[in-house]
Amino acid sequence: MDEAAALPLDVETKVIERPSDHKDELRLWLRLMSCKMLIENEIRRRLRDNYDITLPRFDLMAQLDKAPGGMKLGELSQRLMVSNGNITGLVDRLVGQGLLDRQAAPNDRRTHLVKLTAEGRRTFRAMAAAHEGWIADLFGGLSSSEQETLMRLLGKAKVSARKAIG
Amino acid sequence: MDEAAALPLDVETKVIERPSDHKDELRLWLRLMSCKMLIENEIRRRLRDNYDITLPRFDLMAQLDKAPGGMKLGELSQRLMVSNGNITGLVDRLVGQGLLDRQAAPNDRRTHLVKLTAEGRRTFRAMAAAHEGWIADLFGGLSSSEQETLMRLLGKAKVSARKAIG
Repeated sequence: MDEAAALPLDVETKVIERPSDHKDELRLWLRLMSCKMLIENEIRRRLRDNYDITLPRFDLMAQLDKAPGGMKLGELSQRLMVSNGNITGLVDRLVGQGLLDRQAAPNDRRTHLVKLTAEGRRTFRAMAAAHEGWIADLFGGLSSSEQETLMRLLGKAKVSARKAIG
Repeated sequence: MDEAAALPLDVETKVIERPSDHKDELRLWLRLMSCKMLIENEIRRRLRDNYDITLPRFDLMAQLDKAPGGMKLGELSQRLMVSNGNITGLVDRLVGQGLLDRQAAPNDRRTHLVKLTAEGRRTFRAMAAAHEGWIADLFGGLSSSEQETLMRLLGKAKVSARKAIG
């Protein structure tokens, strides 16, 4: 029994309670999901507690931080894999907070272009630096060499999945 | 440059386009998320194409399969980390398909107890077997020893995150 298995109930431990059919790959998948959920929930909590911002709004600002010229709503929607309706709601709230600017696209007046305001960029950069620190903190129990191995094996898992998907 | 990095655009490659501040832990986190999303999206697609079922409905049936005596709505909501309102919608649809049975709890008539019908159990078991096969297929490019190492390091990442969370 490894260390993780001895810890409190979460997605992974809940599902492996099932008494039969414990294929190794299924356990690996459950562990991957529960690891992601554990870290994501903590990031979500810290963003809320420290910056009063939701994870989807943070992710949206992260996309815009990489696009100094702004981005069309449709492109944002595609990149974030969130519906157009949801993007509009997120953008409305960030515009209301003065963090985003929305204007008609120069070449197509029917389309809106969204970009960070100067304050939005400043705010995002501060949050992003904190976020990076939190991630480093959460993975801090792994040595550099363990982190490298994990990185390599997750890369290999992605290659494997893509081949299976075809 | 490893293999994963040479493949088409996804969450991870999109974000690491950012020209600066590539801390190793952040890249590891982005890779973990993109690996999870790649596999989850494929599972979602296969469940829809093969069984005409959504992933949240599958997850709900998986919980009930482990609870032969049924489960209260509130408990389902907690285990699936989905709001009570959303659980009710999922349950409504599965009851409508004849896969779930909902009745007042014996000790508390104000609470509803939900369980799989015989058909629901049969249907779920068939889907679960296919699902296990898909997961094995998607991780098939990793050797047993690589899978074990990945399992161990993800366990260690969970322990590390839990310690940081406190």
